[in-house]
Amino acid sequence: MEEGAEGLRSHPPVAAMLALPFLPFSLFLGSLGSLCVAFVTLWCHHWRGGFSWDGTTTTFNWHPVLMVTGMVVTYGAAALVYRSPPAWRGPKFPWKVLHGSLALVALGLTVLGLLAVFSFHNTQGTPNLYSLHSWLGLLTVLLFSCQWVFGFSSFLLPWAPTWLRGFYKPIHVFFGSLILLLAVASCLSGINEKLFFSLKNGTMQYKFLPPEALFANTLGLLILLFGVLVVGALARPSWKRPEGDCPETQQPLLTSEH
Amino acid sequence: MEEGAEGLRSHPPVAAMLALPFLPFSLFLGSLGSLCVAFVTLWCHHWRGGFSWDGTTTTFNWHPVLMVTGMVVTYGAAALVYRSPPAWRGPKFPWKVLHGSLALVALGLTVLGLLAVFSFHNTQGTPNLYSLHSWLGLLTVLLFSCQWVFGFSSFLLPWAPTWLRGFYKPIHVFFGSLILLLAVASCLSGINEKLFFSLKNGTMQYKFLPPEALFANTLGLLILLFGVLVVGALARPSWKRPEGDCPETQQPLLTSEH
Repeated sequence: MEEGAEGLRSHPPVAAMLALPFLPFSLFLGSLGSLCVAFVTLWCHHWRGGFSWDGTTTTFNWHPVLMVTGMVVTYGAAALVYRSPPAWRGPKFPWKVLHGSLALVALGLTVLGLLAVFSFHNTQGTPNLYSLHSWLGLLTVLLFSCQWVFGFSSFLLPWAPTWLRGFYKPIHVFFGSLILLLAVASCLSGINEKLFFSLKNGTMQYKFLPPEALFANTLGLLILLFGVLVVGALARPSWKRPEGDCPETQQPLLTSEH
Repeated sequence: MEEGAEGLRSHPPVAAMLALPFLPFSLFLGSLGSLCVAFVTLWCHHWRGGFSWDGTTTTFNWHPVLMVTGMVVTYGAAALVYRSPPAWRGPKFPWKVLHGSLALVALGLTVLGLLAVFSFHNTQGTPNLYSLHSWLGLLTVLLFSCQWVFGFSSFLLPWAPTWLRGFYKPIHVFFGSLILLLAVASCLSGINEKLFFSLKNGTMQYKFLPPEALFANTLGLLILLFGVLVVGALARPSWKRPEGDCPETQQPLLTSEH
């Protein structure tokens, strides 16, 4: 993006028009994330019978709600921690703890979301992990788990050498965006699959786009927009924490940051 | 990725282990792309009845084949043109023409792929564009069309001012990767949907993972691997054309490049 920044620097009016402060963007993104959670909850509550934990279809309903809340919205919030201007100042350690904690909450919600669908399948006698959606989703969760463990070991525990942190960081950043987009892809294939499962009869078939189908398709687009905006924000050079202020690669030990 | 490169520079053995020349990588990627095309063709030929253009399900079969070939594999090849070391030397114009031409071939195959599914739906009396898969796919194709038109107008036609090229280039690069990942997500949701449609009876149900389901799920993973490797290669700093040699932003007109 440096070239874009270069182009902007030489044309202040364009720069002024397109310069977007992080705070209003993150407020918009927070609203969009909340809207995603509200939409998926309303879909499952209003059209799919609500929630329970007894292995019926209403147990399944926790699956989309927890996956969207954990693997997309909370994950997106965790990913953007270092883009917040307050995170640019002072010691990095508290922000690392916040980033790792939010990611851990996201992972916890995701695991609960997996339990919901496994519990539903097991109660109904349906095999687990046969669809491409389930393969994609499981791969996403496995990658996220590895990402969390490697991130924790490399950046929060004190024993990772400087060169390893420097080497792993861009990989962690690349997979951070990739895993979010895989999560979005998993959500979209899952919503698509669920609508084909649920909307089969008479005039309520998916192909006639009844209100539920329109609503859940819109949910899919909102999730996609959220994921793309997070990945776009992560890629925006002017929102990156200036590394010179508190360089990661010059901290051999966690304790040296304070 | 600069920090990773920094880390590598200070540890030559790690750098040597992980330094990957572009040529063997692109040969592997070419084989993987060919394998994706072979898999999707074999799936439609062996399990789904082959190909025709008469509006039946065998007309539909062109849809997955053309989408995977155009929107994923040819698109991926187009995206990687500038990462090829020969493209780093000499005038940039021939490589721009190659990039734009491959993208145009990809777009052409994609449009044919859309025609196949619309023809099938219209003949069968099935509504078009109701599923989330179709919304996602259409959005991907629309973004790709805009990307091609804006790219052609900004980088191949001579009238775009330097600052506009410099401003648009990182946006073009960002959307280049994003559109490929959206195409992959569309393919995965489409394969998932098609398997639920096709595998419904007796022991051949999708949930019992008959050979066709295993084969097509594997196709989905191969497409995903291809897309991730292309996006990873695009993000790799050491494979980027050094802009200093022939800077884009310093060329106000196409003709000034020769």
